[in-house]
Amino acid sequence: MSMDQTHDVNLSSWVDGANEHADFPIQNLPFCCFVQGGESKIGVGIGDWVLSVAEIVTLLDSKFHAAVTSDNLKTMMGWSPADRLAFRQRISELLSDGNDELQGNDALRNAALLRQTDVQFVLPCSIGDYTDFYASVYHATNVGSMFRPNNPLLPNYKHVPIGYHGRASSIVMSGADVRRPHGQLSPDAEGGNPNFGPCKLLDYELEVGFFVSQGNELGSQISIDDADDHIFGYCLVNDWSARDIQKWEYQPLGPFLAKSFATTISPWIVTTEALAPFRSPAMVRPNDDPQPLPYLSSDANTAGGLIDLNLVVSIQSEQMRADNIGPTELSRGSFLNMYWTPAQMVTHHSVNGCNLAPGDMMASGTVSGQSRGSRGCLLELTWDGEIGNPVPGTQRTPIQLPTGEERRFLADGDRVVMEGFCERSGHRRIGFGRCEGTILPALY
Amino acid sequence: MSMDQTHDVNLSSWVDGANEHADFPIQNLPFCCFVQGGESKIGVGIGDWVLSVAEIVTLLDSKFHAAVTSDNLKTMMGWSPADRLAFRQRISELLSDGNDELQGNDALRNAALLRQTDVQFVLPCSIGDYTDFYASVYHATNVGSMFRPNNPLLPNYKHVPIGYHGRASSIVMSGADVRRPHGQLSPDAEGGNPNFGPCKLLDYELEVGFFVSQGNELGSQISIDDADDHIFGYCLVNDWSARDIQKWEYQPLGPFLAKSFATTISPWIVTTEALAPFRSPAMVRPNDDPQPLPYLSSDANTAGGLIDLNLVVSIQSEQMRADNIGPTELSRGSFLNMYWTPAQMVTHHSVNGCNLAPGDMMASGTVSGQSRGSRGCLLELTWDGEIGNPVPGTQRTPIQLPTGEERRFLADGDRVVMEGFCERSGHRRIGFGRCEGTILPALY
Repeated sequence: MSMDQTHDVNLSSWVDGANEHADFPIQNLPFCCFVQGGESKIGVGIGDWVLSVAEIVTLLDSKFHAAVTSDNLKTMMGWSPADRLAFRQRISELLSDGNDELQGNDALRNAALLRQTDVQFVLPCSIGDYTDFYASVYHATNVGSMFRPNNPLLPNYKHVPIGYHGRASSIVMSGADVRRPHGQLSPDAEGGNPNFGPCKLLDYELEVGFFVSQGNELGSQISIDDADDHIFGYCLVNDWSARDIQKWEYQPLGPFLAKSFATTISPWIVTTEALAPFRSPAMVRPNDDPQPLPYLSSDANTAGGLIDLNLVVSIQSEQMRADNIGPTELSRGSFLNMYWTPAQMVTHHSVNGCNLAPGDMMASGTVSGQSRGSRGCLLELTWDGEIGNPVPGTQRTPIQLPTGEERRFLADGDRVVMEGFCERSGHRRIGFGRCEGTILPALY
Repeated sequence: MSMDQTHDVNLSSWVDGANEHADFPIQNLPFCCFVQGGESKIGVGIGDWVLSVAEIVTLLDSKFHAAVTSDNLKTMMGWSPADRLAFRQRISELLSDGNDELQGNDALRNAALLRQTDVQFVLPCSIGDYTDFYASVYHATNVGSMFRPNNPLLPNYKHVPIGYHGRASSIVMSGADVRRPHGQLSPDAEGGNPNFGPCKLLDYELEVGFFVSQGNELGSQISIDDADDHIFGYCLVNDWSARDIQKWEYQPLGPFLAKSFATTISPWIVTTEALAPFRSPAMVRPNDDPQPLPYLSSDANTAGGLIDLNLVVSIQSEQMRADNIGPTELSRGSFLNMYWTPAQMVTHHSVNGCNLAPGDMMASGTVSGQSRGSRGCLLELTWDGEIGNPVPGTQRTPIQLPTGEERRFLADGDRVVMEGFCERSGHRRIGFGRCEGTILPALY
């Protein structure tokens, strides 16, 4: 990677506004898919623009042509790490100040650079299998203390990167409205019959997602040393959660309908290559904690298994929109708070021989830190909201909105906005864009 | 359906051996996908033959052409129930005694009818999302009493058709060998550290699978009255399970790597239409049990929600094969033992607005009955095998093989064979063929 100048802080782009952009300077170059004229295409983000890569195919090595003219990112996800880097370097070169190949060709430049506000973002590919982890020990402890007061953190947690299969079909693009789900809701009293109706305890969960690049054959394993190379890039994920459905249904086989009504992802996949300058050590485990088993341990993972990614969640009620009040911040967290790294999740996932493939998506689980202000869902922020009795020694703390409205859980019309960015001395800040969705009332 | 003569017990076929065939008389006509000359094609089973439907496209209505010449069954799964029935009736007509259209065309007949032993079966389609239910109350009670002795059947069980998302990528075709998985294994003693290595407690689970036909839009629901129309057909499923991985990992988010290393399905999809004569009432619930909530209740479901499907599991060890001893029967069960019907599973799955689509697969969960001989996995048959302490009041009962070998769980080289068939007075018996797989030793 020593030849990779694509993150150089001094690198600048001829694209209008790119050098001042908070999220998408030339050091980022995230991927997306978008629809233009009824066709789905692959794009690269630069400033407020999308570079439509199919338009510039003549400027690219022929080995890239099939992938860049595809209607989704799956073929590109299957590239080798070397090809991914070569492609990034070429795009960086084409967009750099002083390079005239695209800048100097008016027709091509006008065809290839589209305003982000003029396109409709769509999913990066048909998502194969979706796996959701549970990698924040703070989230696991907080939620466990509500669902199982006597037994908050289970004995396996510090040994196993706990995860479960999620529903791939209901993953939607940022901006899609989310219908409040119906279902069987937890009984009013222990031992009672369930209620049935629209979810009353609707929540979001702030997560970081990542897409698998090259996979593994069924029966083979991905070693911890190789695991980061099997990650194409990262996005933001809102794992919408119906807490009253979840509490009633989740034992013994885990969450099901409480999650499968919708999962929202951000349009941009920020690549593993773009995030290289922001790698950070895995969490230092307290002395009393077990060390990861050998198959989950490597020097590279210890030194740089996490990403220094800042995450912000905001909310905007319908009333706030009517009053022209922008989204108000709910929490601010960091991906450094994860107990398990993405590489450990990938390796654990394949240790039994399970085959991963380009287009599979994994998510981290709710990103929560130790402080109240860094908790990644309302269940934690309002500490049990309206579920059952308050936990002894705690108190309910509803969210106050600028309109005077209160929230324990989401109301119809609420819009939840997630944002993420990396910044580090000596590097240009890069961002993830927005992951947002608005709650529609239940159907009946 | 009164016009449907396709199950008439007197209907016979001109295809050699079809009328005497135990599984595939003309009353069945199950679908499969197979590879011929490097190409994947759609077939219909008749006797010991596969009818390659792409070959007979000229004999079919043009509205069917795109689907029958596809390399997988997904387009066909998306047909309306009326089209499915019309297609079945036409195939039945073409294969019936007295019809000369195919029988009388030597070239076409020879091209279209292939011996099943000459083709390689492949998955019916790329499976979208896979959901595994837990619909036998006997299985849930037996397993619960081992994993949670004080709390075997959880309070939600008789209200909720419990299910969880499974791994779609590792679903394999009958005949594929299954590698013994590695993983974190349950500690030797409560509170201890996990072991790591090859699974020692490898099990099968006998299940019935079904494929979704037409789906539903995200945010909409499939009513219990419509649910059976959304099922294309049924197959046999072996949900291979690593019990020592499962016991350690499954809380709080459910089974994950204990299941995702392989799931085997049988090649044939026996259609909802073929199974119509074998519909049976849903299980009569004891007086103390709650009745299903209204969204899971309908007269049609009560009267005919289940299928009278007999299921048989056999095992053949490596030693048995060396000694030329065929598979020996382990258990014999019935799909009538399910507490929840397939229609209830479909309706429950979509009650929160989760979108189902053609090519999604669901499975019933282990089919176990009340008697020992009808238990659908080794965990139940040997009652806790080697997991922890024997349940008080029970005793371990290892399986005795004809070679003198004993089994509590599967050994390397063991082949597990599942078969299923429907028979009822006044109707021709129809069968599901075989779902089989052989255990390969762990990689290291």
